[in-house]
Amino acid sequence: MSCWLQTKSWEEAKIAIEKSKGVAIIPVGSVEQHGLHLPVGTDTYVAMTLAEEAAGRTDAIVVPPVWFGWSPHHMVLPGTVTIRPEVLIELTYDIIKSLSEHGLKKIILINGHRIVNVVWMQICAQRAQTDLGVTIKIFDPAYMSKDIVGSLGFGPVGHAEEVETSHMMARYPDLVHLEKAVDNPIKDTPLYSVDPCYTHDTLCYVPSTLEHARHAAKVSGGCTGEPTKSDAEKGRIYHEHLVKNLVSVIQSLQ
Amino acid sequence: MSCWLQTKSWEEAKIAIEKSKGVAIIPVGSVEQHGLHLPVGTDTYVAMTLAEEAAGRTDAIVVPPVWFGWSPHHMVLPGTVTIRPEVLIELTYDIIKSLSEHGLKKIILINGHRIVNVVWMQICAQRAQTDLGVTIKIFDPAYMSKDIVGSLGFGPVGHAEEVETSHMMARYPDLVHLEKAVDNPIKDTPLYSVDPCYTHDTLCYVPSTLEHARHAAKVSGGCTGEPTKSDAEKGRIYHEHLVKNLVSVIQSLQ
Amino acid sequence: MSCWLQTKSWEEAKIAIEKSKGVAIIPVGSVEQHGLHLPVGTDTYVAMTLAEEAAGRTDAIVVPPVWFGWSPHHMVLPGTVTIRPEVLIELTYDIIKSLSEHGLKKIILINGHRIVNVVWMQICAQRAQTDLGVTIKIFDPAYMSKDIVGSLGFGPVGHAEEVETSHMMARYPDLVHLEKAVDNPIKDTPLYSVDPCYTHDTLCYVPSTLEHARHAAKVSGGCTGEPTKSDAEKGRIYHEHLVKNLVSVIQSLQ
Amino acid sequence: MSCWLQTKSWEEAKIAIEKSKGVAIIPVGSVEQHGLHLPVGTDTYVAMTLAEEAAGRTDAIVVPPVWFGWSPHHMVLPGTVTIRPEVLIELTYDIIKSLSEHGLKKIILINGHRIVNVVWMQICAQRAQTDLGVTIKIFDPAYMSKDIVGSLGFGPVGHAEEVETSHMMARYPDLVHLEKAVDNPIKDTPLYSVDPCYTHDTLCYVPSTLEHARHAAKVSGGCTGEPTKSDAEKGRIYHEHLVKNLVSVIQSLQ
Amino acid sequence: MSCWLQTKSWEEAKIAIEKSKGVAIIPVGSVEQHGLHLPVGTDTYVAMTLAEEAAGRTDAIVVPPVWFGWSPHHMVLPGTVTIRPEVLIELTYDIIKSLSEHGLKKIILINGHRIVNVVWMQICAQRAQTDLGVTIKIFDPAYMSKDIVGSLGFGPVGHAEEVETSHMMARYPDLVHLEKAVDNPIKDTPLYSVDPCYTHDTLCYVPSTLEHARHAAKVSGGCTGEPTKSDAEKGRIYHEHLVKNLVSVIQSLQ
Amino acid sequence: MSCWLQTKSWEEAKIAIEKSKGVAIIPVGSVEQHGLHLPVGTDTYVAMTLAEEAAGRTDAIVVPPVWFGWSPHHMVLPGTVTIRPEVLIELTYDIIKSLSEHGLKKIILINGHRIVNVVWMQICAQRAQTDLGVTIKIFDPAYMSKDIVGSLGFGPVGHAEEVETSHMMARYPDLVHLEKAVDNPIKDTPLYSVDPCYTHDTLCYVPSTLEHARHAAKVSGGCTGEPTKSDAEKGRIYHEHLVKNLVSVIQSLQ
Repeated sequence: MSCWLQTKSWEEAKIAIEKSKGVAIIPVGSVEQHGLHLPVGTDTYVAMTLAEEAAGRTDAIVVPPVWFGWSPHHMVLPGTVTIRPEVLIELTYDIIKSLSEHGLKKIILINGHRIVNVVWMQICAQRAQTDLGVTIKIFDPAYMSKDIVGSLGFGPVGHAEEVETSHMMARYPDLVHLEKAVDNPIKDTPLYSVDPCYTHDTLCYVPSTLEHARHAAKVSGGCTGEPTKSDAEKGRIYHEHLVKNLVSVIQSLQ
Repeated sequence: MSCWLQTKSWEEAKIAIEKSKGVAIIPVGSVEQHGLHLPVGTDTYVAMTLAEEAAGRTDAIVVPPVWFGWSPHHMVLPGTVTIRPEVLIELTYDIIKSLSEHGLKKIILINGHRIVNVVWMQICAQRAQTDLGVTIKIFDPAYMSKDIVGSLGFGPVGHAEEVETSHMMARYPDLVHLEKAVDNPIKDTPLYSVDPCYTHDTLCYVPSTLEHARHAAKVSGGCTGEPTKSDAEKGRIYHEHLVKNLVSVIQSLQ
Repeated sequence: MSCWLQTKSWEEAKIAIEKSKGVAIIPVGSVEQHGLHLPVGTDTYVAMTLAEEAAGRTDAIVVPPVWFGWSPHHMVLPGTVTIRPEVLIELTYDIIKSLSEHGLKKIILINGHRIVNVVWMQICAQRAQTDLGVTIKIFDPAYMSKDIVGSLGFGPVGHAEEVETSHMMARYPDLVHLEKAVDNPIKDTPLYSVDPCYTHDTLCYVPSTLEHARHAAKVSGGCTGEPTKSDAEKGRIYHEHLVKNLVSVIQSLQ
Repeated sequence: MSCWLQTKSWEEAKIAIEKSKGVAIIPVGSVEQHGLHLPVGTDTYVAMTLAEEAAGRTDAIVVPPVWFGWSPHHMVLPGTVTIRPEVLIELTYDIIKSLSEHGLKKIILINGHRIVNVVWMQICAQRAQTDLGVTIKIFDPAYMSKDIVGSLGFGPVGHAEEVETSHMMARYPDLVHLEKAVDNPIKDTPLYSVDPCYTHDTLCYVPSTLEHARHAAKVSGGCTGEPTKSDAEKGRIYHEHLVKNLVSVIQSLQ
Repeated sequence: MSCWLQTKSWEEAKIAIEKSKGVAIIPVGSVEQHGLHLPVGTDTYVAMTLAEEAAGRTDAIVVPPVWFGWSPHHMVLPGTVTIRPEVLIELTYDIIKSLSEHGLKKIILINGHRIVNVVWMQICAQRAQTDLGVTIKIFDPAYMSKDIVGSLGFGPVGHAEEVETSHMMARYPDLVHLEKAVDNPIKDTPLYSVDPCYTHDTLCYVPSTLEHARHAAKVSGGCTGEPTKSDAEKGRIYHEHLVKNLVSVIQSLQ
Repeated sequence: MSCWLQTKSWEEAKIAIEKSKGVAIIPVGSVEQHGLHLPVGTDTYVAMTLAEEAAGRTDAIVVPPVWFGWSPHHMVLPGTVTIRPEVLIELTYDIIKSLSEHGLKKIILINGHRIVNVVWMQICAQRAQTDLGVTIKIFDPAYMSKDIVGSLGFGPVGHAEEVETSHMMARYPDLVHLEKAVDNPIKDTPLYSVDPCYTHDTLCYVPSTLEHARHAAKVSGGCTGEPTKSDAEKGRIYHEHLVKNLVSVIQSLQ
């Protein structure tokens, strides 16, 4: 049976909530440019496929996705939608509040929009934990694959780079146009890296300015990194690694 | 090719925006109890299928759905998620703002969650029209089927009643458990009716109190109306009528 | 004795609250252009006279009016004042909250500004019902005269048209300059009507854009409809019909 | 002709705006207990009568009153309505913004609710002056009668005391029940006085706590001061003094 | 031992809270131009020195200062920082809420930024008193020195005038450049004075417009008043007077 | 001359702004329990000393500190003050806005409250960069010392641990009571580490629940980590490393 809440009648939902031992997953992504070769919905697709697969192995419930994220810097290319973080905090808070009233008190937020959404999720999570007495975990693929990206030969986190592209090739091959991909290798910047694997001194992440975003748009159609090195099999391994971690998190809550 | 924005790369989105002549559809629904026989995602499924079909005939673009709506009164049954209307206003405003920056300046909000979401959509629409210079149309199946529900023998708008159920039977038969449906016929209330076809004096709609909602939950598993009279063929005719109207609205904007 | 709260000492208010059995009326209107022949305060005057008369027959208490409403589209003509709907929600919520603390827990909002104010009133009403445990009814003349407007020969709801003008002629003849009235007959628009009596398919109401409003300003000094057909006696019958309905609503709460 | 905006058609309003040289008065008051002898609407009545009389001598326009003010401390007695100051700021800001778009750019806020409303008016006034380019004056009877209260033998500002009562006797004798008045003489408090005429060291005003308010309710039906010393003729002199000052302020703006 | 909270470990804070009998002082000031002769931090320095000295005599606890205040009118000169009053209300509310949870339930807000900050402090204080059950006192040097400024020969409250300058000379001589001071004597304005000692009719304070502020900037480098008449010994007497009053207020709470 | 804005007259500020080439530092910290051996103001002291020293070497301007941060989890111990992140965003935004109007358009936020404040700073920074056209850098000691903590033998980031304690010993020895320190060694948690140097898979940071905080309060007076291993000389090296990095960031902006 489907793990998605939206497909169930309330009676089926009631049974599923009991089986879930109170664990629900909210997939959150973004609708934003992903270079010339990936769809704008990439981040939400990623969150959905992780949620769906881990839920299938654990009886966690998956809630319909929050399709839109915080993407101010990608507005330079068409198809991008950005929501103010203060609105996303309130939206997600209300979802969590509703779930908690039905007994779903252990919530995993999956951030398919690596790094960026984490910020507002943290504010939302703290308020929900304090005011609603729920437990919130924030699951971000970039932080949850540090153990494996090196061995897969993936470079640092960029945008629509080989990590994301390989993952999409493994899970949604029809939505990937690899032949359109243009590389835009990530250069060292003094005292600044967005990559969670970076081991040196760094300033903290702030979403790029529109100037920066315009530059990437011009150079590589908005991509940062080396998508031409993508590989579906590596994507599969990466996916399985994330799912395994997600299953561990779910089980630790059940 | 798919009409859904999320499946397109930004380059494909750019082309699709041009072909759309600036018309985008935002399907909005709810996640709320729909009796014993319909899934909690019914309202969003309805909005999505209408959007998808009309877009296919007109080159309008369809944006990922706003899955969650304003459902405070249905919180009495599990699986319901309710978002404060002031949050939905801001969320939808930001979606419209982003779309308008890419040239999508004629927006149709489809309200699969009949009547209830209209309220906050009106506030959102007015602000967007004034501040962003866009054109907003609010398309609600209950108001857009007044010409036909009588001839189909449907009773007044209730909740999970024969109208909604027939529609779901026509479009998502696998998600309907008609054998579970329990009728809860709508009785006349002095000076109050929610039905847009009602021709007598009436107070204005206010979402039911929790007491009222608890009563329907007990009597019929949350349904109001007579779902056992549902019929897939009638649902098909109803669907086609709505799609035809939606196509007209789209074409009037193009 | 006067039904108006503002005229009473708190001791008199206390006695009146007991006699009212907890029913209070809040008249809400607008200050906005009403063509060349009606005063800008028309909507609030209408709400006040309905409240006053029904209260006189039932011991309901009438609260000072909310003079200003949501009128963004009428800002094209001088004298109009518009308040953001989110502000009106909070203002009216605080009034209701205060009243409820004194035992006035059954509140009728009269919307003299037909259709438009209903939107924010619904959001206010739902929150008040849920958070304060009060009962809220929204009484709108356009929805509460559907049984009679046909027989009176009134056309559809417009702005400063024969319905409103006849009503004002019956109740505030000194404020009406019928000789200045200019007709602007309401034409059929495909799939769109604001009139609650309309029985065909329609999009939902969104306040007019400023372009539309400028057009009416030019054609007829801001009026939509046929005010020259107004008649004081019809206004009196219309008024009595509304008062009778309002009395019924009050009595159903007492 | 009436000075009140609400009574005018927009054409009449247009002419009146020109004659006013851009000066509008917004009477603001409160609905709150005023002892056993004055109506709960006293503060708004006071603001209205001052506005009306000064406008009559100067062609300033008077806007419908803001009936409700900030009265948290008086909620201990029935009939009181209190609005959060942040809501009053936004409401009054929107009124000013609307007026300024029609050329009324010199606004006088009259605070019939002495001292208390001044606080939020100052925040509103500063924002309006900076963002809308208007000029705002805050006219408060207690600050505008310092030159005269001594010679009239009035004691310090209290609540429903001889100043307010004399004023109401002069202007609205039918609403005063002097025979019900109970004195509650104002005692010296170390380092604290609310009276603008006080010449010694003092902490700043903060609305009374509910405990304090309950005490006054018990002792004198909510009054502070000596209303039994009230006198209609003194009220007339006081009124004329305030009107003269208000006329001066209006003329300095015209 | 230091009276400042920030210097203490939580264990020391715990002991100090007990000794304080629940009294905490929050110094609030501003960062804004203070003429050519005083530092932009003057107002906060003033609040800090008063707090520190009175706390030393009474065991009250002093909280780190709120350095920034409401200074929109002084933005015409460099170095000024202004915070919206609605933000200052929330910030100070959260400080008070945190303190009250540790047993500090009697809070004195010292406003080093004479007159201006009082406005938002009053709104904050009322909400805190009602919602948190705390007691709030607002201590403003201009209101707390009315008994003495006359005898010291100080003129009315202006900006960076002889009162403030003398006080700074007494307490922070190194930060005063008296040789740079330029006088800008305060002229009588009909029906308007900011000075709490003013005994005649007056409109209420509204922060100056930028036009006014630009004028003072040009004439005297932003100063209003006669700083060249400043005197360190008078500043010492003024300081001692304020401290004595502050000690009285603290003791009345303990 | 002092690098602190508050000590300067506006004329001195004007000169300093020119010399700074537009670079300002805002030290931000917290007031929260720091175990039995460190003062509650530790985080702000740290931010101030870094700012002061780097400014001294570069002519950057230092603004008065934001003393209070986001510390909900430490409210279990006295002396802690926590501000809602949405308030901190608005406060800091207004400071940045004011500075930018005077030509300080390159702002460095130093977060002495390691990790936690970063969250709201990111939202503030993005909005300021987009709306005000400024450049914002977020400097956090934990992220800016990754290159050195290993060689100094420091364990992972905890709370009031050997890193923070050594730093305080080097800079504010009088405020450290090392003899009171109690160790609470950080244990491995599956899939969770707050430390920026952590190289394995991890969930994202969410402030601890109050339950967790109560546990640390009991075990070690609120400390996490091994403060007894602290060393002033290591603190000095750590400090110099951070200052050197901060100087680099400043110079890259000048």
